[in-house]
Amino acid sequence: MSKEAWGRWGAADERGAFNSVGATAVQKAVRLVRAGRVFALGQPLSPQTPVPPQRNRMAHLMDQDGGDYAAGAERPDGYQVADDTLFMPVHLGTHIDALCHAWYDDQLYNGFSSNTMRSGTRATRCGVDKLGPVVTRGVLFDFVRYRGASLAPGTAITADDLAGVAASASLTLGAGDAVLIRTGWLETMLGDPDGYFAAEPGINESAALWLAAQGVSLVGADNFAIESIPFTDGKVFPVHQRLIRDFGVPLLEGLVLASLAEAGVVEFLFAVAPLPIVGGTGSPVCPFAVI
Amino acid sequence: MSKEAWGRWGAADERGAFNSVGATAVQKAVRLVRAGRVFALGQPLSPQTPVPPQRNRMAHLMDQDGGDYAAGAERPDGYQVADDTLFMPVHLGTHIDALCHAWYDDQLYNGFSSNTMRSGTRATRCGVDKLGPVVTRGVLFDFVRYRGASLAPGTAITADDLAGVAASASLTLGAGDAVLIRTGWLETMLGDPDGYFAAEPGINESAALWLAAQGVSLVGADNFAIESIPFTDGKVFPVHQRLIRDFGVPLLEGLVLASLAEAGVVEFLFAVAPLPIVGGTGSPVCPFAVI
Amino acid sequence: MSKEAWGRWGAADERGAFNSVGATAVQKAVRLVRAGRVFALGQPLSPQTPVPPQRNRMAHLMDQDGGDYAAGAERPDGYQVADDTLFMPVHLGTHIDALCHAWYDDQLYNGFSSNTMRSGTRATRCGVDKLGPVVTRGVLFDFVRYRGASLAPGTAITADDLAGVAASASLTLGAGDAVLIRTGWLETMLGDPDGYFAAEPGINESAALWLAAQGVSLVGADNFAIESIPFTDGKVFPVHQRLIRDFGVPLLEGLVLASLAEAGVVEFLFAVAPLPIVGGTGSPVCPFAVI
Amino acid sequence: MSKEAWGRWGAADERGAFNSVGATAVQKAVRLVRAGRVFALGQPLSPQTPVPPQRNRMAHLMDQDGGDYAAGAERPDGYQVADDTLFMPVHLGTHIDALCHAWYDDQLYNGFSSNTMRSGTRATRCGVDKLGPVVTRGVLFDFVRYRGASLAPGTAITADDLAGVAASASLTLGAGDAVLIRTGWLETMLGDPDGYFAAEPGINESAALWLAAQGVSLVGADNFAIESIPFTDGKVFPVHQRLIRDFGVPLLEGLVLASLAEAGVVEFLFAVAPLPIVGGTGSPVCPFAVI
Repeated sequence: MSKEAWGRWGAADERGAFNSVGATAVQKAVRLVRAGRVFALGQPLSPQTPVPPQRNRMAHLMDQDGGDYAAGAERPDGYQVADDTLFMPVHLGTHIDALCHAWYDDQLYNGFSSNTMRSGTRATRCGVDKLGPVVTRGVLFDFVRYRGASLAPGTAITADDLAGVAASASLTLGAGDAVLIRTGWLETMLGDPDGYFAAEPGINESAALWLAAQGVSLVGADNFAIESIPFTDGKVFPVHQRLIRDFGVPLLEGLVLASLAEAGVVEFLFAVAPLPIVGGTGSPVCPFAVI
Repeated sequence: MSKEAWGRWGAADERGAFNSVGATAVQKAVRLVRAGRVFALGQPLSPQTPVPPQRNRMAHLMDQDGGDYAAGAERPDGYQVADDTLFMPVHLGTHIDALCHAWYDDQLYNGFSSNTMRSGTRATRCGVDKLGPVVTRGVLFDFVRYRGASLAPGTAITADDLAGVAASASLTLGAGDAVLIRTGWLETMLGDPDGYFAAEPGINESAALWLAAQGVSLVGADNFAIESIPFTDGKVFPVHQRLIRDFGVPLLEGLVLASLAEAGVVEFLFAVAPLPIVGGTGSPVCPFAVI
Repeated sequence: MSKEAWGRWGAADERGAFNSVGATAVQKAVRLVRAGRVFALGQPLSPQTPVPPQRNRMAHLMDQDGGDYAAGAERPDGYQVADDTLFMPVHLGTHIDALCHAWYDDQLYNGFSSNTMRSGTRATRCGVDKLGPVVTRGVLFDFVRYRGASLAPGTAITADDLAGVAASASLTLGAGDAVLIRTGWLETMLGDPDGYFAAEPGINESAALWLAAQGVSLVGADNFAIESIPFTDGKVFPVHQRLIRDFGVPLLEGLVLASLAEAGVVEFLFAVAPLPIVGGTGSPVCPFAVI
Repeated sequence: MSKEAWGRWGAADERGAFNSVGATAVQKAVRLVRAGRVFALGQPLSPQTPVPPQRNRMAHLMDQDGGDYAAGAERPDGYQVADDTLFMPVHLGTHIDALCHAWYDDQLYNGFSSNTMRSGTRATRCGVDKLGPVVTRGVLFDFVRYRGASLAPGTAITADDLAGVAASASLTLGAGDAVLIRTGWLETMLGDPDGYFAAEPGINESAALWLAAQGVSLVGADNFAIESIPFTDGKVFPVHQRLIRDFGVPLLEGLVLASLAEAGVVEFLFAVAPLPIVGGTGSPVCPFAVI
């Protein structure tokens, strides 16, 4: 009943549902491009980017800058240069969860022991460096549009909700599709980071299973954890447990979807290219859609 | 004679040559996709990723990992989770140079004062957050193929070299194209980081001006600084000075081009989506090509 | 009227009032020890240590830990080892302000140009590495005891207040003494970091000038900035401007003074040994008193 | 035969041999001060401070500096201020090893499970925050003087060596003494960080046991790991295993001892005040001696 996708792409696989995006899916995705418009779906990254309390806050520091030259730094042949350094959690702003990010029973996706991931080694299995870029058909489920307003915190989007929307829009999901879910949460909570992380609307476990059954390559949303919070029935991050660990489906959190939604499209070319952080449990990204 | 592109996209512009990629360029790019194959062009990022001596080395630290659970960490409802944090220079591995990265005469691209970029403010003008993702036609100049071997350090690729290759391949550059130059340097120097940063083959100023004249949106290469090093004639980073500051052309350094080159294509869909680091002078990226 | 101490210890001096602690002062300090009791005066340092909003928060990450071994890390000859890494602002918790930390008119203490302190060079003049450890007579002004309660935020301790206390306690300050001022603020605000940094009781400019006139080597307090906040009369950090820049007196902020105060002593051996951070504007420290 | 000191200071103790420094030891230490001279024993801390290859390198970044003002930063009431941030391993330069730093059989000093130290919790037992400052009699074993030259790498200082030196100098160690061992290694290897960490002269296990038998509170040296390297007889860090884990004796590495040695004293007031880093495995410090 669990670990449904284990072995599907081989016993050594660490890429999960990204494998479902083959050449045909890529070709199909590029044929969706008509207007030639590109939408960036990533949040700005700065020390003000909201982080949940248990995570480190981003710091951004200059190694050399314009002030150095104003204060007399040398400029050989006139050349001036600036450099900077980041300190940041990988699960910051808009980011992808690698397949080693969440699990249970000490086994990661595809049965790898979680003992493979330690302070001294980082994730030797299912790290974000194993994902690679994906270019595929993106499908937007815009619940702000369907419901006429942003969803309230705790609202659970169910399998029936997703199926109903798909039916009413004559929308068929295909293997390898990237599903993006707009709840309105990110826009609603701008300027209230504490509230943003305290609760959220999102999908529930039934919706996760329905999406997995369609063979999606990725599930994204404009909230911080994809799934509805607070949890119910004693469950803790059930969508993470099922999608990441059992089905090998990477999650894409903190998406900025308002502009894309305003364009009124439901399908488009979608791409995301995680930083190949060796042994990382995720990566900040700037995904994009092309219509 | 300098600052050639200033004002071309308006006095307030901070995006430079990325503006040359309009809807038509995007549409043209997607029509180049045939096989549906995606090539990742980014280096793995780890504490072993080479950095020049003046830059900070990447550190990658776990906030929570499999070892925590092996040692008894609680798992509410069975849920287990891992998290990590990075410390890294933005000009690391495969990365893009924003338009505030290099300049002279205290003026950035489009005439902004470099005093706008300080430790306390970071880059308020021409930061990497201003670039946005770009999807355009990519063109590969594979000098390893043309010359039959990787170029020697210090080799200067000139305007005539580029024009000659273009002519022999019946290749026409168009406005908004992303030009990728393969010198072989990255592959040659794997495992010798000190040597990698001590010198390199690359384009010279004449080649930079020729590329700018074609209206390219971006210049990338498989070396660490695009241009040939050591410098000659008392110049210091002349290509950076001209392309970034005068023409507003972002540079893309440290590309991994061997696999793409082996596929034998010279044009393809190219995409890069910098992290929107507010006021950053660059961003690590994982650019990709689709053929 | 300003820069009173410039040149007092030579034109090249970067150590300021620490120079006033000569061999005699050290000898006098050790003679104050009777009970042989040591009091640590430093706050615990952790990600929970309060920082003002404009500063980076401390992060503390394990490079290797017990969990690694629980998860199977090798132990050659049985040996197990743990390691960790910090990210932290130097002005964190209990810390000393170096003489390059605060200034005006673009001149640091002793007339050094503040252009000597840049992102690329850090502080080449008056960095905390120039201070060295100091062992001297410490004198406690315990206003919690004298006033019967912790001081209210904004309370200004004046020159008359200090002189009055000294007279009533038959206390004479001498050259090189380290003066520690207890306001009760740190204890009052435990658990309310936002409030802690919003205002505070502390000395005013008259008190600072009085202390400087006594020839003290250092002024410390159990608040975050020594001086009373909010400022009055349009002044901004007047005590920092005068003591650090004009008199070369390092400040010691965030002291934990309750236990020492409870011991009922007013003079004691005091020591602080800043980390010799080359070009740093300060250092976290654990000062101590011996009675 | 192992864990000799467990329980000596109570089952809950996490401070180990620092407990052996009672009031009498402090009083005795201050009586050793004659000249009133203070010697700083800490290395400068900068990005150039040598670190072994497996550790993160220090980074030191400015949050605000003189360059900011040269470039036009506002100065309310004339006030100018600089701030900076560190990224650094705690085992950097001159640093103390806490009692959770090294162990075997999954048990730390005093029998605490090493499972108490995880990425998510850091060291909840025997962290460096448990040590507190120590002021005690310091005793210098200056092997550079006794042997007439710096010791060669790999040289093992034995129990007999220490006992012989003590006898010839009529030197008696007492409970709570801090023993500092000068090998000359730090001075010899200045400018050769790779060589510095490749091998070193130092004490062997017999010397460690002899020191523990004298009841010392701390063992320090002017090398990077106290003990002679390369190891012999298949042992790995035997001195760490025995002194830290079995005897609860903190180690103090990377001391700068040349100036103190030149002063020709063998006993003095010694003090070290670790930063109270909650759950840290060590702390950079600036210990000092007073003669």
